[in-house]
Amino acid sequence: MKIGILGGGQLGRMFIQNALKYDDEFYTLDPSIDAPCHNISHFVQGDFNDYDTLVAFGRDKDLLTIEIEHVNVQALETLENMGVKVIPCPMIIKTIQQKILQKKFYQEHHIPSPHFQIVASRAELNLALPFVQKINMGGYDGKGVQIIRTEKDLEKFWEEPSVVESLVDIEKELSVIVARNESGETMTFPVTEMIADPELNLLDFNICPASVDKEVLSQIDAIAQKFLEVVDSPGLFAIELFLDKKGKVWVNEIAPRLHNSGHQSQEGNANSQFEQMYRVLKNMPLADTDITAYSGMVNLVGAAGFTGKVKYNGLQQVLKLPKTYIHLYGKQQTTPGRKMGHINTLADSREELVEKLKKIKEIIEVRAE
Amino acid sequence: MKIGILGGGQLGRMFIQNALKYDDEFYTLDPSIDAPCHNISHFVQGDFNDYDTLVAFGRDKDLLTIEIEHVNVQALETLENMGVKVIPCPMIIKTIQQKILQKKFYQEHHIPSPHFQIVASRAELNLALPFVQKINMGGYDGKGVQIIRTEKDLEKFWEEPSVVESLVDIEKELSVIVARNESGETMTFPVTEMIADPELNLLDFNICPASVDKEVLSQIDAIAQKFLEVVDSPGLFAIELFLDKKGKVWVNEIAPRLHNSGHQSQEGNANSQFEQMYRVLKNMPLADTDITAYSGMVNLVGAAGFTGKVKYNGLQQVLKLPKTYIHLYGKQQTTPGRKMGHINTLADSREELVEKLKKIKEIIEVRAE
Repeated sequence: MKIGILGGGQLGRMFIQNALKYDDEFYTLDPSIDAPCHNISHFVQGDFNDYDTLVAFGRDKDLLTIEIEHVNVQALETLENMGVKVIPCPMIIKTIQQKILQKKFYQEHHIPSPHFQIVASRAELNLALPFVQKINMGGYDGKGVQIIRTEKDLEKFWEEPSVVESLVDIEKELSVIVARNESGETMTFPVTEMIADPELNLLDFNICPASVDKEVLSQIDAIAQKFLEVVDSPGLFAIELFLDKKGKVWVNEIAPRLHNSGHQSQEGNANSQFEQMYRVLKNMPLADTDITAYSGMVNLVGAAGFTGKVKYNGLQQVLKLPKTYIHLYGKQQTTPGRKMGHINTLADSREELVEKLKKIKEIIEVRAE
Repeated sequence: MKIGILGGGQLGRMFIQNALKYDDEFYTLDPSIDAPCHNISHFVQGDFNDYDTLVAFGRDKDLLTIEIEHVNVQALETLENMGVKVIPCPMIIKTIQQKILQKKFYQEHHIPSPHFQIVASRAELNLALPFVQKINMGGYDGKGVQIIRTEKDLEKFWEEPSVVESLVDIEKELSVIVARNESGETMTFPVTEMIADPELNLLDFNICPASVDKEVLSQIDAIAQKFLEVVDSPGLFAIELFLDKKGKVWVNEIAPRLHNSGHQSQEGNANSQFEQMYRVLKNMPLADTDITAYSGMVNLVGAAGFTGKVKYNGLQQVLKLPKTYIHLYGKQQTTPGRKMGHINTLADSREELVEKLKKIKEIIEVRAE
């Protein structure tokens, strides 16, 4: 089957890497000539936000999917009308692309998400400080999102259509990856716990299973089941969650694709999110997601102050650790905060896992030559 | 690093698939334009047995390795002299290519292998029936090997330089995969047990760990350690073994490369043979090879009577089995006996494993459209 992927980044790369177990042909579309998928697929350089480019790329494919949600949805709708299968459905991509539609979707389906207001300018604000501003379109990896804590912060308010959201008093950030195939079969991954680096606003550590009580798990399960019931599209989705200090779970955002919070599934679960995504695309029986051990992930991001040809310090030392797996993304150039790879590790207990993760974090450095 | 691989078959494909976790560039040389590595590496169509072709392919690489041992060794020696790193060393490839040198190597190093005679013609024969004839060069996947049981069988004796070997009264066929890096570090995989289909003479089932007693394991360990001590080359090697009915272990053959008997390591061990091979090439710390479960493999070979575009029956049903992993090789055309892929499965006990393997074997069929 000819499978086209919009975006040629690391998510696409790891997806294709896993899917080489099967007999498909992969095509990727990305604006960057040295995208991680460049050498391992039929690569087309181009802008997946451009209607004509996307239609030209997609028209001869059997199936189209995404590894980034900021794509031209109108083009996807055109392609769908031409008979190209698109997973997930253009409608759910559109809903998630636009923060306003996303919030309305949660509201409509009684999926708990923080209290919010839709505004186009500061003048319309009617929400108590502190709050989060999320611009309606174009936010990604923490961009287009800011926290407004004080009256002074209000000066940096972006004057454009946005969702403003009450700040959750966060105890933990959690994530659950869920999947649904065309036949309607569904499967969820065990809940993971994320620990973010506040400066970069990028995922940093990732631990699975999350250390939360049954009551919390049951709230998460209810959210996952509700979402899978109402989503009306095959796909793999990452539901990003906040657990507040009172024990209540809120949906922060949902990504309609593979997600950084699921990377530890490559070795920590019976099957990874990448395998599950493949099975969704092919409408195969969904894969079992059992935990094989305590698993965790450290992101490898470019260190501050270094730009240029990447050099990893400490890789050899990390490779000496048992059950530790390095995943680099084939990126030649590092810049501060750029996601260059990640390291997964397994352990027999959470304590051992945290020790290993800290050690890895200490050992490894992503610098320039 | 620019890594060249001689051969673009499934072993190369799975090697590259795993190595996409790192940042190298892969180049493959294979006579077949639709070789499994074609679309996932810089592919050169050409004959790795041709001196000029191999030198031209290898001269600008940082490192060369093999996924098949029937390559032009003289060209590898030339490349080595030009400063290209070749792993494993040309000398050990040459020793293994030539069955006569291989047997002498075992004899010299007191590695137990069946009693043999070197002959160029039937007239020189001085070995009791039954015996195995192995032609000196060019044998592969059971070709160039025949069993001579009776006086009548002697009529089909190949009149060319050969090793003739006393037939071992085989209780079990076993295999151990061993690795050595340039720094001299060594690592062995747990012993696997093979069950062959006598008609095709291709590996059929593969079970790990092997069900053998401590005394047998200790003989195997002695063989592995002795080989790693004397081999004088970095590399990953598959030692194919016979356990006879009296409990003695004999070396059948050694392959200087990735091997079908190690495929279950993809999910059955903390790290696979493919990861270990990568670490050998890069002189990295060798990977831990701990068993994660009872693991087994079924080869998917083209069914008799079917030639043409491949069609797998039963894949969907196999995918419903927990902890079961399909690995196809990207081959479009099936012929009787062609290795098209394999299926790995994990279990909590040997009994459960054998049941699963039998079930898979029953379900799956490799036919033509």
